[in-house]
Amino acid sequence: MGQSNTVRVAVLPGDGIGTEVTEATLAVLEKLTKRHGIGIATEVLPAGAFHYRETGDGFPESSFRAAEAADAILLGAMGWPGIRQADGTEIAPQLDLRFRLNLYAGVRPVRAIPGVPVALADPRAKEIDLVLIRESTEGLFHSRGKGLVTEDLAEETLRITRATTEKLSRFAFRLAQRRGAQRGRQPRVTLVDKANVFRAFAFMRGVFDAVAKEFPGVESAHHYVDAMALDLVRKPWEFDVLPTENMFGDILSDLGAGLVGGMGFSPSADIGDEHAVFQPAHGTAPDIAGKGIANPTATLLSASMMLDWLAMRGAGQGFADAAGELGSAVDAAFAAGLRTHDIGGRDDTADVAKSVMARIGVP
Amino acid sequence: MGQSNTVRVAVLPGDGIGTEVTEATLAVLEKLTKRHGIGIATEVLPAGAFHYRETGDGFPESSFRAAEAADAILLGAMGWPGIRQADGTEIAPQLDLRFRLNLYAGVRPVRAIPGVPVALADPRAKEIDLVLIRESTEGLFHSRGKGLVTEDLAEETLRITRATTEKLSRFAFRLAQRRGAQRGRQPRVTLVDKANVFRAFAFMRGVFDAVAKEFPGVESAHHYVDAMALDLVRKPWEFDVLPTENMFGDILSDLGAGLVGGMGFSPSADIGDEHAVFQPAHGTAPDIAGKGIANPTATLLSASMMLDWLAMRGAGQGFADAAGELGSAVDAAFAAGLRTHDIGGRDDTADVAKSVMARIGVP
Ligand SMILES: CC(C)[C@H](C(=O)O)[C@@H](O)C(=O)O
Ligand SMILES: CC(C)[C@H](C(=O)O)[C@@H](O)C(=O)O
Repeated sequence: MGQSNTVRVAVLPGDGIGTEVTEATLAVLEKLTKRHGIGIATEVLPAGAFHYRETGDGFPESSFRAAEAADAILLGAMGWPGIRQADGTEIAPQLDLRFRLNLYAGVRPVRAIPGVPVALADPRAKEIDLVLIRESTEGLFHSRGKGLVTEDLAEETLRITRATTEKLSRFAFRLAQRRGAQRGRQPRVTLVDKANVFRAFAFMRGVFDAVAKEFPGVESAHHYVDAMALDLVRKPWEFDVLPTENMFGDILSDLGAGLVGGMGFSPSADIGDEHAVFQPAHGTAPDIAGKGIANPTATLLSASMMLDWLAMRGAGQGFADAAGELGSAVDAAFAAGLRTHDIGGRDDTADVAKSVMARIGVP
Repeated sequence: MGQSNTVRVAVLPGDGIGTEVTEATLAVLEKLTKRHGIGIATEVLPAGAFHYRETGDGFPESSFRAAEAADAILLGAMGWPGIRQADGTEIAPQLDLRFRLNLYAGVRPVRAIPGVPVALADPRAKEIDLVLIRESTEGLFHSRGKGLVTEDLAEETLRITRATTEKLSRFAFRLAQRRGAQRGRQPRVTLVDKANVFRAFAFMRGVFDAVAKEFPGVESAHHYVDAMALDLVRKPWEFDVLPTENMFGDILSDLGAGLVGGMGFSPSADIGDEHAVFQPAHGTAPDIAGKGIANPTATLLSASMMLDWLAMRGAGQGFADAAGELGSAVDAAFAAGLRTHDIGGRDDTADVAKSVMARIGVP
């Protein structure tokens, strides 16, 4: 941590709407620092698809080093459909960060925000409050950029390690304990795998089960990934904490986002033992980039997760208070009728920032 | 084909509710044969988890040979949670059939049946009518039973071949043409991949794009699998034919089933160049097995797909007529108020068979 309550946050706005939602979020953070007497020193760093097009480098080593040296990293969105690397894949510095900083726990909350329309007809959909934990350094993504391609076939390797599965599982059980205490309910962790078909997932399940024994106060269960896709549509309100493999988590977290208003409302945190990146789950949205109408809510909620994580890392009570106030302000703004374009409303990026700031008290 | 309009159907009822839904479906097929003057000779074959427990063999070679020799295969459901092989995976003869008979096209329609409640609040959900084509012989499942497991890690290999991707793509475009003609609308095929991250999926996309050029009358598009999971929740009524990799198709087809009433309403066909297996997408449902309350609709609709496929293979117009009448009878029964237990009703397995049979005319 930086000294005397000042933390350094590396900011990577990225491409498209990434820059717009980041700007709105920095304005809100600015107000929170004054209100809670906390210090946040931000440094904006270049990276992304457009930077690649200009310089041939999508993620300069100097940006990586600065991000690595910071206390936390706030990221907008990166990538652009037309800008690809020689092997056909996209520029995605967010993936480099996950791998190079060993951010194994991809925390993706799926929570119905009061006032934001949910997708499901069942009234219980308003109670959705679960969190997917997407393992983010191995699984199928172990193979990223390393796949074998011949004239006739292509192969990728999915890898699950004991060490990472143990860390992921412990992270999930601890998070469940914390959520259980906050919400006053029995915590439950459900591993999402495909152990009925693949040895690697039977292996993952075995490691998870051993870790589960360390947490007798937390219920533990398993679910096959296909059944989970079904149940996230049929009864998502029944789930709590859901750790899973990288590719499965990528798919299920987007499904989850669709349930509670879409990507514009879905924050995320990629957390390791030493570093963490906070970013909205959405992409760069080429169709609306530059119009000022992107929904910054996911980034605001990601920033709230960042403040909370910094507080847990010892930055001080002011950060915990700021995290809580930011989360409540977002909820209150939508409960009061804020409606962004992605849910059929007319409120622009700046309107959201203004409405949320209006709900943050003055010192 | 068997001679003089008689086809041979191998029947593998399997475990749990598999046997119950199969029985109901055979009764309905019996009535259809009389009505349309078509011949179906059925042979019931042993296979499944309980057969494994009794004999140590989940899929006897004699059953496989008989199924291979038949004109079509009708399958109930197989597998049982407590009955596993030494490596921890489940007994799944349906997977053996896909691999050994080269059934590369896993056809999984997702269609809202009039009268059956849909999951989404948006009224357009009643228009859902898409079909997932899950590649069913390679992808991640290439690795099934072959995964590497050491003390510290486990690996599986995802494989995509040019030959299978070409066949899968052609199958998808032809099916889209046929659906377009039946429905009087512009057909569209959307490949679901993860080409932004993996070379194997960039490879798959390249092969798909080349095949797309053979079908200038069909629109062709791509979608990332995570975005597709989101859009299947946000606007599933916009999609038509969706070919995809094996594991992705497993997940997305269950998601799709959840949208239109659940697994009890979701038929499937695993189709190759020479053979085909027709089966409900659901499992053996240990919780309700033996109670006579399982919903046989998915199996009835699978049987309708079987009759249609047999007709296309030259079994005769009577099979096409029977396929159409069965599909319409199922729709009419639910439109008239039939309500199975899985959607909160009180109609049992036998009630569904009776209600559907009542809507099939007499000779
Ligand atoms: C942009 C893409 C590479 C990324 C991923 O697949 O991880 C995104 O979908 C995500 O979920 O963060
Ligand atoms: C039972 C299981 C092995 C099977 C699969 O994963 O293919 C099932 O989920 C399916 O979709 O047919």
